[in-house]
Amino acid sequence: MTTEHIRVDADKLKRFSSEVFQKVGVSEEDAQLTANVLVETNLRGVDTHGVLHLARYSNGIKDGLINAKPDIKVFSQAPGTATMEGDRGLGHVVGHRAMIEAMNRAEKQGASFIAVRNSNHFGPGAYYAMMALERDMIGVAMTSTGGVGTVAPGSNKAAVGSNPIAVAAPAGNKTPFVLDMAISVVANNKLEIARREGKSIPEGWAIDGEGKPLTDPTKRVRGEGGLLPLGGTPALGGYKGFGLGVLVDILCSLLSGATARILLPSGIGGTTTGIDHFFGALRIDSFLPLENFKKSMDEMIGAIEALPTLPGFKKIYAAGGYEAEVVKERTANGIPLHRSIIDSLKELSTKYGVEYNL
Amino acid sequence: MTTEHIRVDADKLKRFSSEVFQKVGVSEEDAQLTANVLVETNLRGVDTHGVLHLARYSNGIKDGLINAKPDIKVFSQAPGTATMEGDRGLGHVVGHRAMIEAMNRAEKQGASFIAVRNSNHFGPGAYYAMMALERDMIGVAMTSTGGVGTVAPGSNKAAVGSNPIAVAAPAGNKTPFVLDMAISVVANNKLEIARREGKSIPEGWAIDGEGKPLTDPTKRVRGEGGLLPLGGTPALGGYKGFGLGVLVDILCSLLSGATARILLPSGIGGTTTGIDHFFGALRIDSFLPLENFKKSMDEMIGAIEALPTLPGFKKIYAAGGYEAEVVKERTANGIPLHRSIIDSLKELSTKYGVEYNL
Repeated sequence: MTTEHIRVDADKLKRFSSEVFQKVGVSEEDAQLTANVLVETNLRGVDTHGVLHLARYSNGIKDGLINAKPDIKVFSQAPGTATMEGDRGLGHVVGHRAMIEAMNRAEKQGASFIAVRNSNHFGPGAYYAMMALERDMIGVAMTSTGGVGTVAPGSNKAAVGSNPIAVAAPAGNKTPFVLDMAISVVANNKLEIARREGKSIPEGWAIDGEGKPLTDPTKRVRGEGGLLPLGGTPALGGYKGFGLGVLVDILCSLLSGATARILLPSGIGGTTTGIDHFFGALRIDSFLPLENFKKSMDEMIGAIEALPTLPGFKKIYAAGGYEAEVVKERTANGIPLHRSIIDSLKELSTKYGVEYNL
Repeated sequence: MTTEHIRVDADKLKRFSSEVFQKVGVSEEDAQLTANVLVETNLRGVDTHGVLHLARYSNGIKDGLINAKPDIKVFSQAPGTATMEGDRGLGHVVGHRAMIEAMNRAEKQGASFIAVRNSNHFGPGAYYAMMALERDMIGVAMTSTGGVGTVAPGSNKAAVGSNPIAVAAPAGNKTPFVLDMAISVVANNKLEIARREGKSIPEGWAIDGEGKPLTDPTKRVRGEGGLLPLGGTPALGGYKGFGLGVLVDILCSLLSGATARILLPSGIGGTTTGIDHFFGALRIDSFLPLENFKKSMDEMIGAIEALPTLPGFKKIYAAGGYEAEVVKERTANGIPLHRSIIDSLKELSTKYGVEYNL
């Protein structure tokens, strides 16, 4: 929160976003759903995956890159698994539908996994993984991505996307465990935000075409260099982050019958349409009584929060704990949006004839 | 391979290891199985998880920490999931049994996941994940661990183990994808090997009780400091490695009905017995025709291997590609074992009355 930020009410932002989507041809139900994913994501403090992208999504529909009214199909050959055809729909609409499919199957089978092809950017993996919390399941969501792309250790050419992995598990009285991580050191969108705000990025996030640290995000040349994989150098485990990225491509793209992004002509660092996902659900009470699991989760999270801190650190969180605190603060005080995002929303207001009342 | 190493034939090493296990009361079948896991792991070049541990396992049985004849039980309440009670058996025996259970269920359901409590150190996750390759499935294996333990970013106290995650997926003509990674920067056993060989460790692997880099592995004090999580510092994603570690504890220990290691009196940095696992299998042809998947895998792995290299790097591998080359070399020339490991095998020969003929 700086003087460059303006506080905006979450409900108003949802209505505005939903109206923009409806103006470009999305049904009311799907528009509300997608607007909800975006704003809930800003509420959690994950501004890299929220209304920042409203322009990209709505313009993508207008330009025919994204299908406003997709014909989503499910193909299943076993009770616990299925593939889905996203028909180039909004990733949020396709993802929501696929996660429900996984949970419905896990209800009966205990475990279910769904690979989805031909979708689009679905925003935050956490949203879909967290859908499982209400049904007392462990939720899993992964996606292939376009954008800058992640380099393999020892190479300077992006080979996989930042390919996030999200997993959520319910607790009792404690905040649920919600892990949502790009397999690169940082998500691609952090470079987009730095560019937008005219900031440099730290060494260790990305390299240029010569393998040297990239600190000026405006200097990136498409197809040269890219994000470093989680771990960074080979000696500190960069091959692990890269391996996780390949795994996400296998589960999302190969298992769904699509094509690995490294093989697409647009490839990594090209278009971000034609994206694939992977979703899963595990029904907890098919393993053990639910109350036992939740009690153990509370105890474990409590023990993590009670860990001693090193100087400069106030509190240790389990994954998702910090975001839950941000939700409380932003629900009370509004979502701080950078002036550049406010400007992009005002442009959309004019372009699509939606009243700007934020 | 240094002058400190001696080449040993894999088959002789298997027979020797199997005999040691039988001398401490393991059945011939389980002894051969466990010896096979250990030596196959050395063949892949993963010396941190091979016969290095033969003394620890056999002495663990002798000392009553590990049960030579476990009564392994399966409890299932849904077709695709189950929990298993390992009865303090050798982790290799319990893990092998659990992975077969997961694959048998995935055969029918498409997907299956099994949480296993009360087992022991199972060696390399890759072995169990790779069992799925012969059955044209994607295999998953995870385990909670004891040992040094991994610190949370901002803390100096280990809260989770190095909790490895292994996933294997079959290819056609190419080497299968095999990812096997500790969620710490390095596996705990790399510190054990450095200690054994009197070497220092690089900065960035571990910290001491004051949060300072630990480079002398003999200086570690139990319960103080620990391994750094994959990613290292918070700014470079250390919370991701730590989050993965907590996830592995949730899936292995909490879902199996055991107790998170952070809550055990011995805790992290204490005993390594009473360890829990998580296994899974996805039947590929329940998603798409197997030959399509394998063709895509070959193309993707080929594209990764064809990536341009930065100076100092000869070749980019997909996960598992390097290890497959080591298997060929070691099968032909024998497994190079460090003198300190040879010494430990000779001690076992004397202690348990097994002829030393390596």
